[in-house]
Amino acid sequence: MRYPQSVQIVEVGPRDGFQNINEWIPTDVKLRIIEGLVRANLQHIEVTSFVHPKAIPQMKDAQEIIQKVLKEYPTTEFVALVPNMYGARAAWNCGVKKITYVISASDEHNKANVNRTIPESFVELTQIIEELPEIKVKLSIATAFGCPYKGKVAVEDVNKMINAALGLGINDICLCDTIGIANPLQMQHVIEAIKKEHNKIELGLHLHDTRGLGVANTIVAMQSGITKFETAIGGLGGCPFAPGAAGNTSSEDLINMLESMGIYTGIDLPLLLDVVGIVKDKIKPDLTSRMIHVGKQKD
Amino acid sequence: MRYPQSVQIVEVGPRDGFQNINEWIPTDVKLRIIEGLVRANLQHIEVTSFVHPKAIPQMKDAQEIIQKVLKEYPTTEFVALVPNMYGARAAWNCGVKKITYVISASDEHNKANVNRTIPESFVELTQIIEELPEIKVKLSIATAFGCPYKGKVAVEDVNKMINAALGLGINDICLCDTIGIANPLQMQHVIEAIKKEHNKIELGLHLHDTRGLGVANTIVAMQSGITKFETAIGGLGGCPFAPGAAGNTSSEDLINMLESMGIYTGIDLPLLLDVVGIVKDKIKPDLTSRMIHVGKQKD
Repeated sequence: MRYPQSVQIVEVGPRDGFQNINEWIPTDVKLRIIEGLVRANLQHIEVTSFVHPKAIPQMKDAQEIIQKVLKEYPTTEFVALVPNMYGARAAWNCGVKKITYVISASDEHNKANVNRTIPESFVELTQIIEELPEIKVKLSIATAFGCPYKGKVAVEDVNKMINAALGLGINDICLCDTIGIANPLQMQHVIEAIKKEHNKIELGLHLHDTRGLGVANTIVAMQSGITKFETAIGGLGGCPFAPGAAGNTSSEDLINMLESMGIYTGIDLPLLLDVVGIVKDKIKPDLTSRMIHVGKQKD
Repeated sequence: MRYPQSVQIVEVGPRDGFQNINEWIPTDVKLRIIEGLVRANLQHIEVTSFVHPKAIPQMKDAQEIIQKVLKEYPTTEFVALVPNMYGARAAWNCGVKKITYVISASDEHNKANVNRTIPESFVELTQIIEELPEIKVKLSIATAFGCPYKGKVAVEDVNKMINAALGLGINDICLCDTIGIANPLQMQHVIEAIKKEHNKIELGLHLHDTRGLGVANTIVAMQSGITKFETAIGGLGGCPFAPGAAGNTSSEDLINMLESMGIYTGIDLPLLLDVVGIVKDKIKPDLTSRMIHVGKQKD
């Protein structure tokens, strides 16, 4: 089995993680955690969402967060999630250069998540690109491996969405296992089926660990040539509209594995574990990651 | 990547799991859990240890447990761990047909675990086999992927132990990742190095999930041809003499993955989840397995 020499980690804890915490996290705590992530050499951080504060109150400090981090850490790539034109415009006006736009592979989940059909989501995306032609867009395809409402999702449907994205000039695609339902065999087959149709896209994965398969699916994905993974410190995260969904694959667990396999991430694991300590102390004492319990002890 | 059509699961929760619970578990609770495991069609269960009650008080009801289960469930294979001749004799006298005997691949850990050098452990094993020639023996090689005291363990040392076992007529070998330190690349290399020397042994794996790699290592092990895995309900377990060691790979998480991949285990997952519910209620509310939180919901 072959593995890549290096892997790009996109830290999504401050967005996908924090937005699933009900209790308000003070902005200065968020900023302290982001600072720690930058110090640990995370170079790609999904840092907030420009969503309506009534929908996700936790993200109401998006503007303050983004302006501070863009000023403080100019060499880090900060990404913001936007659900619509309004959010995209707000993000762009704050200086955001790259946005995540999410469309589910199942109409049922897309309706629950953003109250639109898949075609309606693509219309909105088209308008965003027309109005903001310089903004970089990553298309995240939610429920790409299974939907909590519809059940199975056909890879052909995912491929059609990638075709539509390419038609809009979007090459940066992230497949999301929103409810952590993918198994390693399916992972291999889906990646093969997508690579067969689209061999030049930049394909990443965002794998929830609902059933404990996030790391195993990552192994198989690397064997299939994938080198970009979105993870969250402490295994934070979930999807408020997907029943049963637990957290993301934990950044520290995945990075520990990659480093122990000699796969370069550029990330300083002891410094990252310091940040996880802050998350545990200030936000969520019962983190599901394993490395938080192992800590920095010498192996 | 190829996967086996079926996999044998050896449930070790009642032994490796229970022995790491400090509070006394009443014998009737233990028996209720074992009954549930049998009902879920676990056909191989490591059910207790014949150890000195001062060393591990939790196992002091070994004789009662083994006599009841052998009588109640005659078609299930029940295995007992024994640390020495005294334990082997006690197990045999209760009707145990198969024992697990543990020797660590590092003298440092073997000393901490059973207060013997590796050669001394083999002398004791030889005496057991001479006195009880009809008893089946599985040799579990602890710290086969790394030792909390010594650090790295050479696969040559593991191969030497397998040679010694074969010399005693023991063909049933289990490699234990006692402190959950193995990574998938190492897993592949160790299995290849052992299979190269010993292509006819019955090789199983016992993988702790300390760093969250139990399931990922299982995937790679199956790709390398391994079809026997020891797991514990709820992810119970650990090693009292290995600092930092957390639980075993969870039976329900692994079986859920195998079944979703179409790999036959013969185990009824909903019935198994009922047993995990008992473990959670009666023994350990904060189980680390993921499936306990997902439950029996339809995917």
